[in-house]
Amino acid sequence: MADYTFYTNPMSRGQIARWALHEVGADYEQVLVDWQDKPAAFLDANPMGKVPTIVHHAADGDRVVTEAAAICLYLAEMHPEASLLPNEAETASYLRWTFFASGPIEQCITSRALKFEPSPDQEMMAGWGSFERTMTTLDRFLASRTSDRPWICGERFTMADVYLGSSVDWGMTFGILPPKESFVAYAERIQARPAYKAAKAVDNELIERMRK
Amino acid sequence: MADYTFYTNPMSRGQIARWALHEVGADYEQVLVDWQDKPAAFLDANPMGKVPTIVHHAADGDRVVTEAAAICLYLAEMHPEASLLPNEAETASYLRWTFFASGPIEQCITSRALKFEPSPDQEMMAGWGSFERTMTTLDRFLASRTSDRPWICGERFTMADVYLGSSVDWGMTFGILPPKESFVAYAERIQARPAYKAAKAVDNELIERMRK
Repeated sequence: MADYTFYTNPMSRGQIARWALHEVGADYEQVLVDWQDKPAAFLDANPMGKVPTIVHHAADGDRVVTEAAAICLYLAEMHPEASLLPNEAETASYLRWTFFASGPIEQCITSRALKFEPSPDQEMMAGWGSFERTMTTLDRFLASRTSDRPWICGERFTMADVYLGSSVDWGMTFGILPPKESFVAYAERIQARPAYKAAKAVDNELIERMRK
Repeated sequence: MADYTFYTNPMSRGQIARWALHEVGADYEQVLVDWQDKPAAFLDANPMGKVPTIVHHAADGDRVVTEAAAICLYLAEMHPEASLLPNEAETASYLRWTFFASGPIEQCITSRALKFEPSPDQEMMAGWGSFERTMTTLDRFLASRTSDRPWICGERFTMADVYLGSSVDWGMTFGILPPKESFVAYAERIQARPAYKAAKAVDNELIERMRK
């Protein structure tokens, strides 16, 4: 049995988890989930019925992890040899930008896709404030990256880049995040990762096959 | 100078971060932020202009952490002596439920407060699926807790309980999360934490003072 069972769909946030699985070199078996016909073992692991979901078949028993960002950070923890964890000084940025992506950026993308925007007097209640506020904050951060410190934590690529990178990449592909110079440059850097390419090749082939 | 500068407002998600600061026994100085008149040092640290934001004055320089969930996990990492970190086997649940709270539950509360709900054909796009789906998943999890394993990771309270606990507590106080039996029981357990009581006492006194 593989170490991980990976419930996914190629046209979903499962692409984020697959990239993370490839970054750590995980031994995984995929189970494709059809939104209309979900396997019982999947619903048992995640009653939300949302992909990605992973089941880690650890020595002490099965462990379920849901939420794409949680899967990324979990895999980094389980595979320290992949060197995708932050050191002590990098922990602040690592956590800050992962939660910034899973919170404000995710809410920006979702709310715009679903055609809902908070009004100015709702900005205090909305965790992401507003689309513009989130984009400006992200742009200011990514524009501060330099050639010798191109990643979230500085010179070293970490798992936080898998998650924030996926958000920026997917948000622009989806036509929701504006193609600001700093966003495009960051997306190009992440697209050059060998594990990114390997993971996308698998998902793109699955999408091609579904279209036939 | 205190170890942490804590930018907050008593009537905000800053209450979550304050509880976390008290759980780890952090040495912090608070700076109250008025939504209409934000200090320059605060906006410099967090261009989003959102509280809570902490600045950790570490030996190697200042580190900024934003997003309430990131602040919780960061403080657990910086204060291992508080024993709020998961062990290896607990890491899956620790990350899963923290991101479940900062993602689906947060989006449930926000979308309902702002009077927006995804339609059935938008459930695949929405990370939280739907309000009912998220509540059912949370209920199933919390109802599975037992008297000898009452917390997210089992018998031991961890920082994940500070964040999920705050979400459940605040969501019910706000009248958005339904008072399901498992939610009420979990909220009562977290309210019994001495650090919860100490933190709420500070925020409640600040709120009283603002009302005068």
